[in-house]
Amino acid sequence: MKQELLNLRKQMKDNKIDAYLIMTDDFHGSEYVGDYFKCRKYISGFSGSAGTLLVLEKEAGLWTDGRYFLQAERELENTGITLFCSGEPGVPSIEEYLERHMEKGQTLGFDGRCVMADYAARLNEIVQKKGIQICSDRDLVGEIWKDRPALSSEPVWELDSMYAGMTRQKKISCIREKMKENSADWFLLASLEDIAWTLNIRGNDVECTPVMLSYLLMSEEQIIWYVQKKCVSNEICSSLEKEGITLREYDEIFSDIRNLPAGDSILYDSTHVNAALYTCIPSGVKKIDKQNPTLLLKAIKNPVEVENERIAHIRDGVAVTRFIYWLKTQVGKETITECSAAGHLEMLRKEQEDYVGPSFPPIIAYKEHGAIVHYSADKDSDVPLMPEGYVLADTGGHYLQGTTDITRTIALGTLTHEEKELYTTVLRGHIHLSMARFLHGCTGVSLDGLARTPLWEKGYDYNHGTGHGVGYLLSVHEGPNSFRYRPAVKRGNDCVFEEGMITSNEPGVYLAGKFGIRLENMIVCVKDTENGYGRFLKFEPLTMVPFDLDAILPEQMTQKEIRWLNAYHKQVYDTIAPYLNESEKVWLKTATREIGD
Amino acid sequence: MKQELLNLRKQMKDNKIDAYLIMTDDFHGSEYVGDYFKCRKYISGFSGSAGTLLVLEKEAGLWTDGRYFLQAERELENTGITLFCSGEPGVPSIEEYLERHMEKGQTLGFDGRCVMADYAARLNEIVQKKGIQICSDRDLVGEIWKDRPALSSEPVWELDSMYAGMTRQKKISCIREKMKENSADWFLLASLEDIAWTLNIRGNDVECTPVMLSYLLMSEEQIIWYVQKKCVSNEICSSLEKEGITLREYDEIFSDIRNLPAGDSILYDSTHVNAALYTCIPSGVKKIDKQNPTLLLKAIKNPVEVENERIAHIRDGVAVTRFIYWLKTQVGKETITECSAAGHLEMLRKEQEDYVGPSFPPIIAYKEHGAIVHYSADKDSDVPLMPEGYVLADTGGHYLQGTTDITRTIALGTLTHEEKELYTTVLRGHIHLSMARFLHGCTGVSLDGLARTPLWEKGYDYNHGTGHGVGYLLSVHEGPNSFRYRPAVKRGNDCVFEEGMITSNEPGVYLAGKFGIRLENMIVCVKDTENGYGRFLKFEPLTMVPFDLDAILPEQMTQKEIRWLNAYHKQVYDTIAPYLNESEKVWLKTATREIGD
Repeated sequence: MKQELLNLRKQMKDNKIDAYLIMTDDFHGSEYVGDYFKCRKYISGFSGSAGTLLVLEKEAGLWTDGRYFLQAERELENTGITLFCSGEPGVPSIEEYLERHMEKGQTLGFDGRCVMADYAARLNEIVQKKGIQICSDRDLVGEIWKDRPALSSEPVWELDSMYAGMTRQKKISCIREKMKENSADWFLLASLEDIAWTLNIRGNDVECTPVMLSYLLMSEEQIIWYVQKKCVSNEICSSLEKEGITLREYDEIFSDIRNLPAGDSILYDSTHVNAALYTCIPSGVKKIDKQNPTLLLKAIKNPVEVENERIAHIRDGVAVTRFIYWLKTQVGKETITECSAAGHLEMLRKEQEDYVGPSFPPIIAYKEHGAIVHYSADKDSDVPLMPEGYVLADTGGHYLQGTTDITRTIALGTLTHEEKELYTTVLRGHIHLSMARFLHGCTGVSLDGLARTPLWEKGYDYNHGTGHGVGYLLSVHEGPNSFRYRPAVKRGNDCVFEEGMITSNEPGVYLAGKFGIRLENMIVCVKDTENGYGRFLKFEPLTMVPFDLDAILPEQMTQKEIRWLNAYHKQVYDTIAPYLNESEKVWLKTATREIGD
Repeated sequence: MKQELLNLRKQMKDNKIDAYLIMTDDFHGSEYVGDYFKCRKYISGFSGSAGTLLVLEKEAGLWTDGRYFLQAERELENTGITLFCSGEPGVPSIEEYLERHMEKGQTLGFDGRCVMADYAARLNEIVQKKGIQICSDRDLVGEIWKDRPALSSEPVWELDSMYAGMTRQKKISCIREKMKENSADWFLLASLEDIAWTLNIRGNDVECTPVMLSYLLMSEEQIIWYVQKKCVSNEICSSLEKEGITLREYDEIFSDIRNLPAGDSILYDSTHVNAALYTCIPSGVKKIDKQNPTLLLKAIKNPVEVENERIAHIRDGVAVTRFIYWLKTQVGKETITECSAAGHLEMLRKEQEDYVGPSFPPIIAYKEHGAIVHYSADKDSDVPLMPEGYVLADTGGHYLQGTTDITRTIALGTLTHEEKELYTTVLRGHIHLSMARFLHGCTGVSLDGLARTPLWEKGYDYNHGTGHGVGYLLSVHEGPNSFRYRPAVKRGNDCVFEEGMITSNEPGVYLAGKFGIRLENMIVCVKDTENGYGRFLKFEPLTMVPFDLDAILPEQMTQKEIRWLNAYHKQVYDTIAPYLNESEKVWLKTATREIGD
């Protein structure tokens, strides 16, 4: 039994709390969280990026999804915590489990700051049905966690308009228009990426995401930024105040929300406002719970952002192309492992101008590790790369000119026919989506099938979306645009594709115990023709890195697919070659050679 | 100015009604309506199947959609009624028009029995905002319509289980399960197709749809069928009563709903329950407004229904194949017009066993008429067919074994390259959807693009869905399955495709003033393989009629597309030839010959 778990149970008992729930969220519902917030990992030992821990007097359970079953099984061994594989047949959900295991009069505890309001509302339904009490204002883990890392408070910095492409005044006036459309007197913004986007400010409080812990509260007259003031230089502070933006301490949001005038209305997104803050909204204030209007504004990249992204992708393309050249030529000659390869790629990225840092933990996965979709090599799992089979490299970087996310599956030597056939099939799907020409009005649901059809025809699939939106020097996973074949149910219908949206295109295939293939470019949605039938849109690739001709069976491709590949490879060569040394250039010429069918 | 309009205005004035709204609906929100309900046509003269008339003291407006702009313009000439082209830029919606043209204290009238509850709720919002009165219990058109056709009261008949594939007891128990899931004490069913499906009874009260005017009200203990009793034979009556189904007069539903016990809950679908009936629900009764559970039950055809549909489609295929043979061999030799061709096809269908009647008014559209999506030839528009260009034939029939809906575009002689190229492009889209293999979980939104992509690539589109569900000896347009690229917003997400769903696959292209092409098969969703990736599904064509090889450019098709076409044509020949005479058989052999690329 893990000592931390025993300590928590004692704390629960002393406080008459019968069940305690620990989510993965920070105060803002962020995808990645700072070390201060890793309570679930501290108590359970499970280090995956998604999972929920529920501790009762006798039992404890951890719920996580398919990406983490194997890892969680290993990490939970001998902890006294049961693994619940979410979504598997016969496995109860946390809510079902709570209903079954709690009794009338008992108390369910959680830290209301780390549970988002929409989920707290679901918990509340169960609690009401069962006659359970809720205690949401105690951070029991914090109370027992002796050497807890401090709340991050890194300095923030301004993102110049030459990078952001739009001043914060302009962004704020767009938001105020949306507030009017929703008849909202106030707008409470708690999503860290949306605040950073709105203010053209970046920080360093969250792993892989250059954002800062803060809240924003706006009305027609006021803009108040709740932030750890020590993180804001005098210069930024005065430039914000000159523009009418007031700074208050991070925590003061709670009392300010409590004091909102009755009769006013407030717009907020309950998927990113935590339950503790939500309960501060006075009952006399009208609640408008909607998707943050900033989400769509931020997703449609402005022309400056799009042009910057092209620059970021040239720099990233140079680094990744060099990486592939190095891998292909050095494997078998020097010792390269998954971890050392990741280090080498990071070094190559660091050589690039305006590089900020990785946009997510790199995935360098050799052979069967490639079949684990969210594999991350550590010292226990690390293996040397040999001159055979595939290594899958899914990595990305932040640059002042934008964020990249690229996957290449690289042949290190001999391949089986199956390996080649599946590479070709995944590539064909990737190309189909890349070539799409479609009418405005299409959502990602109508387009996802283009990438999946070649695999479906052969009875294969990949258990993830075909693509996600990507932020501009923000989160590498950004809504509302995405490609997936099942409609999203959370917030109404999936969004319609608009010019300027940047999305990943990453079909794959995973053969457990054998190998994984994923081929990912970032693509930007651009105007095509407009005629009597409507406004046609298409995609342009941003990523500039060759696919692996050693892995392709041209005879399984159509002429059209081959034409696209040849044209893309020509563009890659023309764009990237000028930045390479002679031997790299010679290699790239061959790697991007024209193929016939 | 039309006399009927003047009479209505007088009636409005006498009753202090300032605006009167006339929809197209019958009491049940049916797609096609009986003659008794054609009030909008009676007052305005506009005969399209969709449109709403609003009459004010000085102005009158008719709103209809793109299918009917030309027809409405012609039919409304000199009536004093303004045409509003719904959805066109700058054209106000009826709701916007009402808001602008009505003033506080005025009265808006409509027959609440012919306005569905969901739309009445929208009207109510406007009315409340503006301080307008509503008068919903007067049928002003009925009051002035001297020679109004009587409410249809045709005899009903039982559909044997050998056709329906499931007894009504079984269906009722499925519905009761759904009631339990929704915690509903009562279920009010007003959709005529759903009642006919539930009871395995058919009627003849609505054009092209073999249903009868009635309501159904169910609880765990009771089933009450509100129907014009004179339409029900003693035999059917006693067989129903033996099964616990009580018959009451059609109108008695109103008082029975008024007398529902307080505290009970009632499930209903506000898109098919009229406002007059809705307002009868006592305030103490809990309302559960949801899609009728019968909709999905009815859409998933049982194995008997599917096998019957195959038989119906052989019979229909024989009739349509003979029709095409006759057209191709007789055009230019005898006088054939759009109307006479429709008559000839109807005669050929009547020769088939178990034929019941047309499933919708036939569309036989020559040359430029083919570009009018919902063209219907009448004596004014009828033209002779000549041995050149295309005739588009979109027709269908009801059989005891099911309902058909087929479109073929037939080359009557020389074609231009453009005509051939677009036929080939539409056919390629049709084939792509026919060949689809996909994972369970796909909706029509994820599949629609397969049919559209070949056209989109060339900058064309068709302004209608790629397909709709088809009823079994019920409405030829049936939900919830469909193919379209924009998600439906009315009732949550689009439905997931299930084994047994029958849908049309009908891409097209329309060049105004030149020609139209549409190619439609009905396809049934069937099981494919199941493996670790999930449960794969695919489609099988039900329709057995050749496409026109005279219109195809094989060099624009892929090998895979050609293989599909050759296999389909072989199946058509093998299935249909045994029912043809010698000369037809010889012709069909050539018409279904294998082509190369």
